Amino acid sequence: MNRIVTLTTDFGTGSGYVAELKARLLHARAAFTLIDIAHDLPAHDVRAAARLVGQTCPAFPPGTLHLCVVDPGVGTSRQLVWAEIAGQQFLAPDNGLLSWALSRAPLNAARAIAVPAGAAATFHGRDVLAPAAVRLLDGAPPETLGPSVADLVRLAWPEPHETAAGLAGEVLHVDAFGNLVTNLPAELWPRVVAAGRLRIGDHDLTTLVRTYGDAAPGTPVVLVGSQGFIEAAIVAGRADTQLSARLGSRVLIMDRGPG
Amino acid sequence: MNRIVTLTTDFGTGSGYVAELKARLLHARAAFTLIDIAHDLPAHDVRAAARLVGQTCPAFPPGTLHLCVVDPGVGTSRQLVWAEIAGQQFLAPDNGLLSWALSRAPLNAARAIAVPAGAAATFHGRDVLAPAAVRLLDGAPPETLGPSVADLVRLAWPEPHETAAGLAGEVLHVDAFGNLVTNLPAELWPRVVAAGRLRIGDHDLTTLVRTYGDAAPGTPVVLVGSQGFIEAAIVAGRADTQLSARLGSRVLIMDRGPG
Amino acid sequence: MNRIVTLTTDFGTGSGYVAELKARLLHARAAFTLIDIAHDLPAHDVRAAARLVGQTCPAFPPGTLHLCVVDPGVGTSRQLVWAEIAGQQFLAPDNGLLSWALSRAPLNAARAIAVPAGAAATFHGRDVLAPAAVRLLDGAPPETLGPSVADLVRLAWPEPHETAAGLAGEVLHVDAFGNLVTNLPAELWPRVVAAGRLRIGDHDLTTLVRTYGDAAPGTPVVLVGSQGFIEAAIVAGRADTQLSARLGSRVLIMDRGPG
Repeated sequence: MNRIVTLTTDFGTGSGYVAELKARLLHARAAFTLIDIAHDLPAHDVRAAARLVGQTCPAFPPGTLHLCVVDPGVGTSRQLVWAEIAGQQFLAPDNGLLSWALSRAPLNAARAIAVPAGAAATFHGRDVLAPAAVRLLDGAPPETLGPSVADLVRLAWPEPHETAAGLAGEVLHVDAFGNLVTNLPAELWPRVVAAGRLRIGDHDLTTLVRTYGDAAPGTPVVLVGSQGFIEAAIVAGRADTQLSARLGSRVLIMDRGPG
Repeated sequence: MNRIVTLTTDFGTGSGYVAELKARLLHARAAFTLIDIAHDLPAHDVRAAARLVGQTCPAFPPGTLHLCVVDPGVGTSRQLVWAEIAGQQFLAPDNGLLSWALSRAPLNAARAIAVPAGAAATFHGRDVLAPAAVRLLDGAPPETLGPSVADLVRLAWPEPHETAAGLAGEVLHVDAFGNLVTNLPAELWPRVVAAGRLRIGDHDLTTLVRTYGDAAPGTPVVLVGSQGFIEAAIVAGRADTQLSARLGSRVLIMDRGPG
Repeated sequence: MNRIVTLTTDFGTGSGYVAELKARLLHARAAFTLIDIAHDLPAHDVRAAARLVGQTCPAFPPGTLHLCVVDPGVGTSRQLVWAEIAGQQFLAPDNGLLSWALSRAPLNAARAIAVPAGAAATFHGRDVLAPAAVRLLDGAPPETLGPSVADLVRLAWPEPHETAAGLAGEVLHVDAFGNLVTNLPAELWPRVVAAGRLRIGDHDLTTLVRTYGDAAPGTPVVLVGSQGFIEAAIVAGRADTQLSARLGSRVLIMDRGPG
C-alpha cells in the first residue's frame, strides 16, 4: 500500500452515497490521498465500469488501492474480493468489474471478504469494502481479509474478427467529447492506412490523421487514440451524434479489393 | 478539529465558486483533508441540502468541520453560524440547513459569525465562512468566532401519520438510481410485511425483499434501505420514472382489513 | 511551489482522462494537495476555460501550480508552456487559456515545454504537462523545462463601449444559478444607479439591489456580483431562461436623456 486510494462508483454525488463511503474510509488511523476516478458511471453498468477501471487504474503508482463499486448484485451471493493485479490493489464485488484489467495482466492474488454482521444488504461498498480498506490502510495484511480465491468473474470483451468485407470491430467507448474509441488496437493502424479508410456504421471516414487538429473543423477523422486503440472523431465536433454512432456500433477496416 | 473539512454546496463546479471557496480555505497554515460531499444540489433548495447534510455528515470522524453553503438569503439578515452537533462541527447559514442533523442529535453549542467588512454581499461562503474555517484550522477556539446562539432555525420534516387507509408517509429523497427513499423508518418494516405491500402513488408494490438482486430485473420491490428508511426500487431500473413518483409522492402502508 | 496543484479541464470525469492525468501526477515523490477546479467545461471552449482560470486561480496561495488543459489544438504546432503570473504557476497549452489571467496581471516568466518522445499526439495533458508538473513537484527549477518564451497568446475580451443609447456591454458568463455576469466592472455601478436600470436584451431591469434576497422571489434584479462585475439575476429563479439571455447577450446602461 502506498496510501493512495481511488474510488470508482455509479453512485452519483448528489445522493450522498459517495460521501458516506469517504466518511468510513476517513476512520483509518493514518492520512491517505483520496482520488475520485468517477462517480457518474451509468447505473448498474458493470461493463462500462470495468472498461474505465482497466483504462485508468494500471497507471497509478504501484500499491494504490482501488475501491470499485458498481454492484447491481449487492447483498446477493456474488462475492466481495480483494485482488492484486500488476501491482495495483483492488476492492470490488466479483461481478466482472476487474475483467478489463485482467485482460491486460494476470491475477496475482485474491481474497474473499466476509460480510460483517450488521452490514446493510444494499450498501456493501460502505459496510464491507470501506472497512476492509481501512484495515489495509491500518496495516493489516491482505491475507487477513479472508480465504484465497483462485479466479475472478471475467466478462467477455468483443474482439475484432475477420469478415468477408474486412476486419470488423466495434465502438467500445464514447468519451466526453463524443469521440468513438474502438476495440481495434493501435497495431492495426497500418491496415487502416492501407485500406485508406475506416467505416463506422454507414459512414466511410477517409481522413487519417495523427491528431484532431490536423484537419479542418467538422472533418470526420480516424487516428490512433491515447488509449492505444483506433478512434474516430469529428474535429471540433461530436462524432457520436454526427455519425449516429454509439457503444457497440460496428466498425470495419474494408481492405481494398484486388481490382 | 481533526483537520478534515467537507464541502456541501449548490454552486455547481463549472461556475468557479467552489474553487474560489477552496482557494480561501487553502490559506490555512496547516494541511488538511478536503472532501467534496456534493456541489450539484438543486439551486436554493435548503431542504434537499439539509437532508444530505444530515445523512452524510454524522458518519465522519468526530471533529470534522463541515462547510455547508446553500444560501438563498445570502447577504440578508439570516445569521451565519458555527455549530457543534454530535461531535461534528458545522459552518453554515442559519436557514434550516442543519435541521435534519438536529432532528437526530441535540445542538451542543453554536456561535454567530460576524460578517467582516468588505465581504461580498452575495458570497458569504467565500468571504465569511471560509475565513472562519481558516481561523478554526489555524487553532482559534470556536468561542472567538462570535456570541453564543441558543438555537438554530429548524425546518419541519414530514412525519408518517395514521389515516383511515393506513399509515401514510412520503418520498423524502430520490437517489441517483431513481430509488425512492421514504420517511418511513426501518422500524416499520414488520408492519409492511404484515400488510404484504406498500403503496406508492397508484402502485401497489407486493415484492418485499432484503436487497435489489433478490427479484428479477424490472420488478418493483420494497426493502429497508441503507439509510435506515423503507425504500422502493425497480430492480435494474428506475422507480422514479417507472412508478411516476418523485419527492413528496404519497406512500401508504395499507393494513389488511379484518375481512 | 507550495505543493498545491489544481486541475482545470474539459475532459468530463466519466471518460477516465482526468484519472489518467492524476495517476501521472501521483508519481511525484512528495505528497501534494490536488484540487479539481472544474472538468465539466464546455468541450474545446478555450474562452470559457480562460475566464474560469482567470477568475479562480489568482485566489490560491502564492506558488500554487495550475494545470489547465482545454486543448483543441493538441498535438499541433501550438506550444505547451509553463508560466508565472502574479505569483501563480501555470502549465497549459499556449492557446489563449491564460489570457484572462493575463488581462489582470503581467506575465512574470514563461518557458516552452518540449514534447517528449512517445507522447500520445492526442493527450499532451497526460504525456507532457503532467510529467512537467511532476518534475516541478520533485524540485526541478522551471528554467529546466525549456527555453524562455517572451509572450503568450492572448484572446481579445469584449470591452464595454459607449453607444448612442448608452454604455454597451455583454454577458460574459452564466453561472450555475443562471445568473448573468456581465463585462461591466463594479466601478460602473454609480452609472447604473444614475440610469435607474439595466437593459439585458429586450428587458429593462429596474430593481437595483445589494444582494439577491433584497427583493421578492421572481423579481429580476441588478447588483454588483462577487466577481467584481455587474450581474443580473432573478431572485430564486434563473435569469438565463427567464430573460432569454446567454453568453454574449447585449447589456446596456441606458443613461437618462436630458428630457
